[in-house]
Amino acid sequence: MRKMFYPESVMVYGVSDSPNNLGRNTVENLERFGFQGSVYMVSREGGELNGRKIFQHIEDIQTVPDLAVLLIPAKAVPDALERCGRKGIPCAIIQSAGFSEFTEAGRRLEENLLDISRRWNIRFMGPNCIGTINLDNGLVLPFFPIFPDAMKKGAVSIVSQSGGLIIDIMRLLILENIGFNKALSIGNKLDLNECDYLEFLISDPETRSIVIYLENFSDGRRLMALARQTQKPVVVLKANRSSSTHQIARFHTTALAGDDDVADTALKQAGIHRVRTITELADAVKIFSLPLMKGNKLGVVCRSGGQAVTLADAAHRHGFVLAGLSDSVFDHVRKKIRAGVIRMTNPLDLGDVFDIRVYEEIIEKVLQEPEVDGVIFGHTYTHDESIPPTQELIRATKRLSQQYGKPVVFFLIAGRNHFFALRETDDFPIFADPEQALQALAVSRRHHGHQSLRTATQQPSSGRVKPEDKAPSKSTPAFMDPEESFRLLSSYGLPVADFAIVTSLKETCDAAEIIGYPVALKIASPEILHKTEARGVHLNLKDRSALAAAFQTTNTDRFLIQKMSAPGREVMIGGRQDPEFGPVILFGLGGIFVEVIRDVALRICPIDPEEAGRMIEETKGFRILQGFRKQPPADLKALKAFLITVSRILVEHPEVQNLDINPMLVFYEGQGCLVVDVKIQINGI
Amino acid sequence: MRKMFYPESVMVYGVSDSPNNLGRNTVENLERFGFQGSVYMVSREGGELNGRKIFQHIEDIQTVPDLAVLLIPAKAVPDALERCGRKGIPCAIIQSAGFSEFTEAGRRLEENLLDISRRWNIRFMGPNCIGTINLDNGLVLPFFPIFPDAMKKGAVSIVSQSGGLIIDIMRLLILENIGFNKALSIGNKLDLNECDYLEFLISDPETRSIVIYLENFSDGRRLMALARQTQKPVVVLKANRSSSTHQIARFHTTALAGDDDVADTALKQAGIHRVRTITELADAVKIFSLPLMKGNKLGVVCRSGGQAVTLADAAHRHGFVLAGLSDSVFDHVRKKIRAGVIRMTNPLDLGDVFDIRVYEEIIEKVLQEPEVDGVIFGHTYTHDESIPPTQELIRATKRLSQQYGKPVVFFLIAGRNHFFALRETDDFPIFADPEQALQALAVSRRHHGHQSLRTATQQPSSGRVKPEDKAPSKSTPAFMDPEESFRLLSSYGLPVADFAIVTSLKETCDAAEIIGYPVALKIASPEILHKTEARGVHLNLKDRSALAAAFQTTNTDRFLIQKMSAPGREVMIGGRQDPEFGPVILFGLGGIFVEVIRDVALRICPIDPEEAGRMIEETKGFRILQGFRKQPPADLKALKAFLITVSRILVEHPEVQNLDINPMLVFYEGQGCLVVDVKIQINGI
Repeated sequence: MRKMFYPESVMVYGVSDSPNNLGRNTVENLERFGFQGSVYMVSREGGELNGRKIFQHIEDIQTVPDLAVLLIPAKAVPDALERCGRKGIPCAIIQSAGFSEFTEAGRRLEENLLDISRRWNIRFMGPNCIGTINLDNGLVLPFFPIFPDAMKKGAVSIVSQSGGLIIDIMRLLILENIGFNKALSIGNKLDLNECDYLEFLISDPETRSIVIYLENFSDGRRLMALARQTQKPVVVLKANRSSSTHQIARFHTTALAGDDDVADTALKQAGIHRVRTITELADAVKIFSLPLMKGNKLGVVCRSGGQAVTLADAAHRHGFVLAGLSDSVFDHVRKKIRAGVIRMTNPLDLGDVFDIRVYEEIIEKVLQEPEVDGVIFGHTYTHDESIPPTQELIRATKRLSQQYGKPVVFFLIAGRNHFFALRETDDFPIFADPEQALQALAVSRRHHGHQSLRTATQQPSSGRVKPEDKAPSKSTPAFMDPEESFRLLSSYGLPVADFAIVTSLKETCDAAEIIGYPVALKIASPEILHKTEARGVHLNLKDRSALAAAFQTTNTDRFLIQKMSAPGREVMIGGRQDPEFGPVILFGLGGIFVEVIRDVALRICPIDPEEAGRMIEETKGFRILQGFRKQPPADLKALKAFLITVSRILVEHPEVQNLDINPMLVFYEGQGCLVVDVKIQINGI
Repeated sequence: MRKMFYPESVMVYGVSDSPNNLGRNTVENLERFGFQGSVYMVSREGGELNGRKIFQHIEDIQTVPDLAVLLIPAKAVPDALERCGRKGIPCAIIQSAGFSEFTEAGRRLEENLLDISRRWNIRFMGPNCIGTINLDNGLVLPFFPIFPDAMKKGAVSIVSQSGGLIIDIMRLLILENIGFNKALSIGNKLDLNECDYLEFLISDPETRSIVIYLENFSDGRRLMALARQTQKPVVVLKANRSSSTHQIARFHTTALAGDDDVADTALKQAGIHRVRTITELADAVKIFSLPLMKGNKLGVVCRSGGQAVTLADAAHRHGFVLAGLSDSVFDHVRKKIRAGVIRMTNPLDLGDVFDIRVYEEIIEKVLQEPEVDGVIFGHTYTHDESIPPTQELIRATKRLSQQYGKPVVFFLIAGRNHFFALRETDDFPIFADPEQALQALAVSRRHHGHQSLRTATQQPSSGRVKPEDKAPSKSTPAFMDPEESFRLLSSYGLPVADFAIVTSLKETCDAAEIIGYPVALKIASPEILHKTEARGVHLNLKDRSALAAAFQTTNTDRFLIQKMSAPGREVMIGGRQDPEFGPVILFGLGGIFVEVIRDVALRICPIDPEEAGRMIEETKGFRILQGFRKQPPADLKALKAFLITVSRILVEHPEVQNLDINPMLVFYEGQGCLVVDVKIQINGI
């Protein structure tokens, strides 16, 4: 994999000296960025470019290049890849478009490419991508001109499923004075996918944080497992959230849209930071260039009352608390103020201090406060003469932030004429919107929280559980027989109401005697989804005559008879196989909580006890389970154990496509819970 | 009021030739911006500035200036204002700080200023402000140097309760290539408040849209009435949303924080656009420089598949629908494409079209589609040579947007070196984040929706209803007697359950005979808030002996006996006097909807039938009222009428501080509703 990004020699296939030739741009990019390795050019026509020979055949090259870059018509790619393989080239980047993102014929070409690559053990990026930019060694492969003075080297690496968007992201980061190290446009992900690149970047010493734009997940579970292994922040912009984008995404890079809620949950569980927009992406990257926010307590220092109010407002919105400041800070401020109209509070409005150098001292004083986890500083200047001291302040703030190991978020709206000069004062991020700045700081706090959580409780490795079949099965899954469904739960020790499957009136009455009245009688068919509405359910039958009457009026030949249980809180527990992340588990209170307000908690399986507890607690219905209006609390311990077991069933039975335990009753504390009904769909054989 | 912004002569009080003198900056600003009126300088010390005389006394000036600007120590302001008044000066701006925002003594000074201004009929801005910038006539009054080349004249006017923040807002707008016309820092709003300035700006022909930063509302109802009268967009950044900012806000400009939910509702009802951040503020202003978005259907044209996906994503998130495009568009595109790997859909990904001039034609084709209400165009360029054609495209897009009367949102991340050149190509907004661009477009659509709503249904003028006492009353409001409370509702024709107030067992039983069994017996005290939990409620007493038993076990000497009603859906209707917006009404379903998930709808009173309907529909519980799980629908007509009447009670009885009708039962369609319990708090006499 390293040869893909640090090759000693590169072959570019598809170069001519025509001014419109795209491959030519690649070669010229490599020159402009001072790539030190050998570069071989190939095209059917041969010839010369800038006095250097263009080979007509791959075979004509004397040595074996580490990397082949192919930009030729789609239908010519298989043959070229075959030749690369035969020659022993280990890596290729297929930039050409016109594959599965475009037509069915293109999809067949892709199958062909996979065969060839497996035969020759050649790994490749693409097709349908612009390739790689590695500023560390000048490996700049896109097929349009790129200039060094428009780039900025840094420690962020970018992986993007879209070539167009990677340009937007790079440009935005550079505007924000953030340099990047490697940018990879990964296209259709036919062979190597985002997980392979992530694995490489995690081990890449030049990369400190990783940004990924994705339209679909190639292997959600591996992505989660990788992100859990690293301390490096991973920020994901996952598009394709709504059904209206499925069409274009499929056309674009053959994205098969997953369930967006599952993606949200999965990324959160793995400690990956999901952003919605490129601006949030840039802000997250900026915040990760500062020390992490290790707690909740913020010091706010600013230069106008209006800033103080809006910063405190935004702090509150993002869950921060204004730290109490000690007299040590206030005494220092008192020594420095002029007209004496400053209130000694946090936020500290220093509009009255006109000497910019004083701010450095005050920021340091606030950083020294043990209660303070981080500082936001709001700067405003009105004179051009303030520019040099402001730049000095930016440098000092960077130094202080590092020295105290706490983030200092610098908020400043620079004037048009000094915009870039101020922003580019140092490798230190400047924010221009208090809301965005504090949203980013919340990402930093979350990252810290996730890191400490990870070291505290070792998450179960989830890498081994993989969805069985990534292409969604075309065959309709079959319903499992109710009896089998109940037995499956029982076999894991889950409490189910006493039941029997019966067909005749006699059997029914006999079963009732064994189970004990009162009983419920239901149609024993999982396919009638809302049995209550279909009048297929008779509850609370107290004796034989009531049972017989119910039997007579129901039009079926197979019944489920069940012991009526004591009343309890109705909850529902669901599960399904997600095509991108494998088994997921769902929990919610029954009735309006699930059906009207969609109040559910979701997790990728397996879950541990802490995760099960968080699932229950994050639902709005949790208040009901805790004991609402003087009711005793429900048996949360039993519920937690139940969720963990269901998660285990889902992991150990990948043939279960959907599972719906609804209702389950949770009784008062210490009294356990009981499954009343369950439906299971399994993959057809 | 016009003289405040267009004076023929200005007096600046507090000028000396010292280099540190602040008033001097004001005078020099007026010179730099070419203010054409006369400028008189005054200070106790007299002397000269740049060869012009500084008067020692206001009285020494021969004529009567239109406007006085005071920047002298707080305690000297009353005397100066007195002299201004005596001289006949009609307007003043008091820039000095040190008033109620700082100390109690400062608050007393303010009372003094109000007395003086009323006596002499002099209106003033401030205190504690930086004054006015009017780029229309060069009236630039802040006490720090401002330079013409850092400003940009346009059609937006800004009103801000914070002087520091107005600088941030101005600078941000200029960065975004948006000029402003007038910027007013209004400080403590002691005499003139935001409503006065809004009224002026609504009538100001130079102002096309209005931006207001507020920390508190001086007269919420007047603000609403004014905003309803104008077609000009009004955008409000209302800070001070959370309790943690109350302290600083009070200190800063004596803001008394209002209930933020009420503010949200009030602004929405008046068609004012509330933004949370200065970035949203700038985006809203930018979008209002385009034609309004008159519908929901969006055409998306862009230059990469990744852009297509993210734009479509963001469109969906902000409630837009991708318009269907006709063959007329697609045929045109087909004629222009190169490699032929473009799918004919909306979003239209034109990454394959390299000639930027073609985009103009395609945007026009899309604008011509009758189904399309607006277009978002995502641009990406990679070469420096693309800059001139991109600028040409920006100009063409502006022209097309105006010609077709539809917004074209231009999305582009400009490279660092061309950042301002591209953004400042023309008076046409450039957006750098698809999410923010479409959020802004949603504001435009909302503005259009509000405008059409306003012309369709004439809103009742709400200006006349004003909170009785703006300072929150210190006296605890008293509870109204339960009997009176029920009678108040009855007197408006609202259905209440038959009831009687009784004290002895005999009275109780007699009353039950008249009302008819079954009955409920409750403690007749509104102060026991949760009667059920206090065991002060006995329901469903079927006969005399049950009633007597309940009577004996309850420890009170005053009972409410009430007829048990048929079962119905429990709802709650509340009301209260908001200190900033007067009477507000609240509606929600009972039980967990209100108590667990806080599912309520809120409005400023009075409400009309449409608004009452929208209140009911916007609650999550609406689904229950519509008839959940084959239940018949509830009597929504009766509920709507009920809400309107409660709103009328709140308007006509300003002494009602809090009102809580809970529960009220809503029966099935056609069967009305019934008040079961009500609590009312009124202002102590």
